[in-house]
Amino acid sequence: MNARWLPSFVAGTRIQASVDADAIAHNLAVIRAHAGAASPAPRIWATAKADAYGHGLSLAMPGLGQADGIAVQQLPEAHACRAAGWQGPILVYGGLLAEEDIAQLDLADLHLVISHEAQLDWLASCPPRPDAPAVWLRYDGDIRLAGFSDEAYARAYARCTALAAQHRIGAIGHLSHYARAEDEDGVAEADARFRQVIAGLPGLVSTCNSAALLRHPGHVCATDWVRPGIALYGVSPLAGIDGPALGLRPAMTLTARLFAVQTLPAGASIGYRAAFVASRDMRVGLVSCGYGDGYPRHAGTGTPVLAGGRRTRLLGRVTMDVMIIDLDGIDHAAPGMPVVLWGTPDLPVETVAASAGTIAAELLTGLTARVPFTARD
Amino acid sequence: MNARWLPSFVAGTRIQASVDADAIAHNLAVIRAHAGAASPAPRIWATAKADAYGHGLSLAMPGLGQADGIAVQQLPEAHACRAAGWQGPILVYGGLLAEEDIAQLDLADLHLVISHEAQLDWLASCPPRPDAPAVWLRYDGDIRLAGFSDEAYARAYARCTALAAQHRIGAIGHLSHYARAEDEDGVAEADARFRQVIAGLPGLVSTCNSAALLRHPGHVCATDWVRPGIALYGVSPLAGIDGPALGLRPAMTLTARLFAVQTLPAGASIGYRAAFVASRDMRVGLVSCGYGDGYPRHAGTGTPVLAGGRRTRLLGRVTMDVMIIDLDGIDHAAPGMPVVLWGTPDLPVETVAASAGTIAAELLTGLTARVPFTARD
Repeated sequence: MNARWLPSFVAGTRIQASVDADAIAHNLAVIRAHAGAASPAPRIWATAKADAYGHGLSLAMPGLGQADGIAVQQLPEAHACRAAGWQGPILVYGGLLAEEDIAQLDLADLHLVISHEAQLDWLASCPPRPDAPAVWLRYDGDIRLAGFSDEAYARAYARCTALAAQHRIGAIGHLSHYARAEDEDGVAEADARFRQVIAGLPGLVSTCNSAALLRHPGHVCATDWVRPGIALYGVSPLAGIDGPALGLRPAMTLTARLFAVQTLPAGASIGYRAAFVASRDMRVGLVSCGYGDGYPRHAGTGTPVLAGGRRTRLLGRVTMDVMIIDLDGIDHAAPGMPVVLWGTPDLPVETVAASAGTIAAELLTGLTARVPFTARD
Repeated sequence: MNARWLPSFVAGTRIQASVDADAIAHNLAVIRAHAGAASPAPRIWATAKADAYGHGLSLAMPGLGQADGIAVQQLPEAHACRAAGWQGPILVYGGLLAEEDIAQLDLADLHLVISHEAQLDWLASCPPRPDAPAVWLRYDGDIRLAGFSDEAYARAYARCTALAAQHRIGAIGHLSHYARAEDEDGVAEADARFRQVIAGLPGLVSTCNSAALLRHPGHVCATDWVRPGIALYGVSPLAGIDGPALGLRPAMTLTARLFAVQTLPAGASIGYRAAFVASRDMRVGLVSCGYGDGYPRHAGTGTPVLAGGRRTRLLGRVTMDVMIIDLDGIDHAAPGMPVVLWGTPDLPVETVAASAGTIAAELLTGLTARVPFTARD
């Protein structure tokens, strides 16, 4: 393990997440190189919803400076982007959740994804203004997690045209999201249906999440704005290959402290309900991280961790506050030693997610308020 | 569903957790009634680690006023208890993680659990003071998640006696934690070993988590302080029975907003990778909660939710921001309707945890900063 990947550990800290804005900037450049194969190259909405996929918006923002826009889920996040210093366009995927939300539209260069008719009713009640928000009509497509159907899309577009003429909204764009972008046959049919629905309707087009960008570069050339998310944080959106193998760098490293070393005689058990039983005399370490920090309880014996620069493994069952690791072969292990839980090229978060039967995004967004976050030195 | 269990939903809120301090007070009284069967009745360390099991220390504290002491994991939490107005004793399970922690011992009525020799070294370097912290020596027992072995215990006790004579520590107590308290045969042998180890060593004794209290009331009479945790928050510590069936009341209710209603023709799919396929024409709802809020992604189709006072079910796969629910038979469902995800007598969090293959404590502690918390009216 390269020392580059061992963030300094603040004295007294039981656990910490360090966020590497340079890694995010690097990943954004990698994505732009992929998208840049198209001509003209699409612009990039860098998706930073869920507090920048759990990295913390203010810690991630220095890495997103070269994005063309930032995309978030809710209007309060858009305001948080401005507070964090972002001056460019902001796209809100799930804003206008209720009529009251129109009070939060007082941001310049705001773009709203519109998914159902009531949102247009609410916008119709807004006073006209010269810098009214742009809207992106969402096609429900093959994922159907909100959006307009084939039948409803043209009518919604006509309503938008009227609202734009009244200066209650600005530009009108077209947006779709793929259900199966990581599959070889996952985009072509869905894209063809989308193009058919928007045919003849003026406006910029936005498609392609991280998976579509990396898996289907041919479709990128027909879109004006792409919307990468997870790849910005160094995580592969594709099955069977991790972020580092795609040239991405992990943006978050989770590290906890080894706080005790125990010897277990052969046959001795450790943990609730004898979660692990030593098959031989063993040295094990107790690490100050548990599911109360957001580490997944589904990760069981064998999940890799890095202790003292060596790859070793979890033992037994993660508790609220403590996990047990195997110290076999790590003779220099001693209380105070940092233990890396995820987020290096040798131990990408995808590996831990696979052990826990889930995806990396759940782990990254799932750390709790008990974990202090720091910018990597 | 009783209207009592529907907390008011703030306009514009996509999700909220409401915390019922009265329920915590009720649960504490239930636990005290169980413990009170012993004579003399033991005192209660109310365990509020991990930000009061995810409820928020300041929101939970009004319900803990009748506890004899509060137990937390780390020293900063002890200071947070004082800041939240708690004047009584505070027990720290995992404090003194590193030598620097001795700078945080300036709290009156502080009790430290001592699990290894280095912690005694650090205390030996503290200046004597009249209100030095009490210590509780932890026996490693059958769980072995830190603590002194049979062989090391008496030596550690002797060191404590010397430190107490120097006024570097106050009283010395004995503490053990059971690995299998929920099992019928889970306590007797472990307790006998503990009693043998501490025999002849003066000091108060603390045993019994929630499971031991409820499952093994006979052992409560031999202990001075019990340490309930999860049951305080209305959750059963025992398999096969939920909190309400034990007379406990859920302390946290998680509620999200239905933001769209979709119709799915038979055969239509919804979600990433066609996570759910409609077997007939269906109405489904999109709810503004996802794994980015801490709702478990392992909870799949069939996990119960309460919409419009009716029990219905999750469909497909929870995404970062959205979950899909079945609206069959809920004809009045409309955008804006609150959907209860857990934390009523009809839908205890244990039910959702079982669907997700985990325990309630992981869900309660796992909500992310994106979820606003409120005190129940």
